[in-house]
Amino acid sequence: MKLISFLNQGVPSYGIVDGDEVLDLTPILGTQAPDLKTLIAKDLLGAAAEAAKTHQPTLKFSQLELLPVIPNPGQIFCIGLNYGEHVQETGHKVTEAPAIFLRLPESQVAHGQDILRPAESHRLDYEAEIAIVIGKGGRRIQEEDAWDHIAGYSCYNDGSVRDWQVATSQWTPGKNFYRTGGFGPWLVSSDEIAPGQVMHMQTILNGQVLQDTTTDKMIHSIPRQIAYISSFTPLSPGDVIVTGTPGGVGNKRSPQIFMKPGDICEIVVDAIGTLRNGIRDDA
Amino acid sequence: MKLISFLNQGVPSYGIVDGDEVLDLTPILGTQAPDLKTLIAKDLLGAAAEAAKTHQPTLKFSQLELLPVIPNPGQIFCIGLNYGEHVQETGHKVTEAPAIFLRLPESQVAHGQDILRPAESHRLDYEAEIAIVIGKGGRRIQEEDAWDHIAGYSCYNDGSVRDWQVATSQWTPGKNFYRTGGFGPWLVSSDEIAPGQVMHMQTILNGQVLQDTTTDKMIHSIPRQIAYISSFTPLSPGDVIVTGTPGGVGNKRSPQIFMKPGDICEIVVDAIGTLRNGIRDDA
Repeated sequence: MKLISFLNQGVPSYGIVDGDEVLDLTPILGTQAPDLKTLIAKDLLGAAAEAAKTHQPTLKFSQLELLPVIPNPGQIFCIGLNYGEHVQETGHKVTEAPAIFLRLPESQVAHGQDILRPAESHRLDYEAEIAIVIGKGGRRIQEEDAWDHIAGYSCYNDGSVRDWQVATSQWTPGKNFYRTGGFGPWLVSSDEIAPGQVMHMQTILNGQVLQDTTTDKMIHSIPRQIAYISSFTPLSPGDVIVTGTPGGVGNKRSPQIFMKPGDICEIVVDAIGTLRNGIRDDA
Repeated sequence: MKLISFLNQGVPSYGIVDGDEVLDLTPILGTQAPDLKTLIAKDLLGAAAEAAKTHQPTLKFSQLELLPVIPNPGQIFCIGLNYGEHVQETGHKVTEAPAIFLRLPESQVAHGQDILRPAESHRLDYEAEIAIVIGKGGRRIQEEDAWDHIAGYSCYNDGSVRDWQVATSQWTPGKNFYRTGGFGPWLVSSDEIAPGQVMHMQTILNGQVLQDTTTDKMIHSIPRQIAYISSFTPLSPGDVIVTGTPGGVGNKRSPQIFMKPGDICEIVVDAIGTLRNGIRDDA
């Protein structure tokens, strides 16, 4: 099942996608769950699947204005330096613990929306990543139980403003420019992706493949990430973990490549789909 | 005016403190503003002050179970390395840009609540800081306008688990252990603290003064912080900026001092008040 958040005539809603058909779930489940995060928190994914059997889709995916898959996550954790080639190209070392930074919801954009290149810097880079969305919350989740806590998977473009990222030791500013992080197009529920299933992931910028990896190359596995994060803070339904980017970022290429107005950046994951964003200048 | 968030028979509320007297604002303004963040967002601080003139306080501060001043901030920005002595004791260098990391609301505790020492590490350190709460939001706020965007001031204890903070280059885990950040006791509205007024701040652990500074020693001023942060992301009412700690942290003392169960840690700011937290082990 593929779940989306979107605007229906300006009103936030959520639904199920099948090809170009979209079933709006708000008229069916909206009183129980006003948004996708709450649907997940109330364990209503089964009810959503049931609704899809008995209701006709009324909307077209290609005509919708999407929202980030989870528009209002309580916490967005990002894993840095989690693929060997990226560790190498950035001159860092592999650490026993995963490097973790946070994104803020304001930094996100949906599939189909433009990523904004800020006026403050033009060193805007892409980062292909797989996002997991927490289904069942918890503290001190054991690695062997971690897969049970995942509601589903999405693509993420962890858009980074490189000079602001390294202005100090802490990456927060460069990772949190307004509307630089693509999150979409949809949530593939975890029943469709087996625990540990190897996924193929690419960044394609204006048709050119710039990152290309498989998820078995992660240094810190998804269960390890969930266990580590939940050792310091409780995870809640709808929380997002962005699981790291492979080698090939634009900042470390020769010559360097940065995203600029008019570009189209795609994050393609075989088991999920394609997250596509244009780039334009922030007004 | 001093504003607090608290539990009234288990129900979140907010009010005005005057000595030991508390006026519960929920019965008066609750339909317009369910919480203090919304009161600030709707610019109802004036209405709250008016209410205090015509209503009698019915609660006692000393008997209340407080909440963190803003229990549900959308964004919590923390400024690292913002006093020379702290930069020096940690072996870092002064940077042109402020070092910024984020805390999550789950990491906060109120005045009077215990800070939790996690099972994962006993290297739990204090950090006296002044928190500002954003009143009027905005993007790309100019330094000269920044004071107008502050709703008020509070004390903050940026509790830090030192080994988890430096396990990688990114401080997030050590700065976000569950219930390690004290935030209180109240918000002193900005009409009571003049722009740039020098405040005297101390950490007192079990009666011993361990940090002692004045806010004129900040490297990056409060207006600079607001301008810098709002250059990459919009600030919203209720957002919190934790403005940095001076020298004297326990981790850098000889011998080292870490907070342990039974300790009482106080952050004392002359213009604000005293934030007091006990320490106990996380269950």
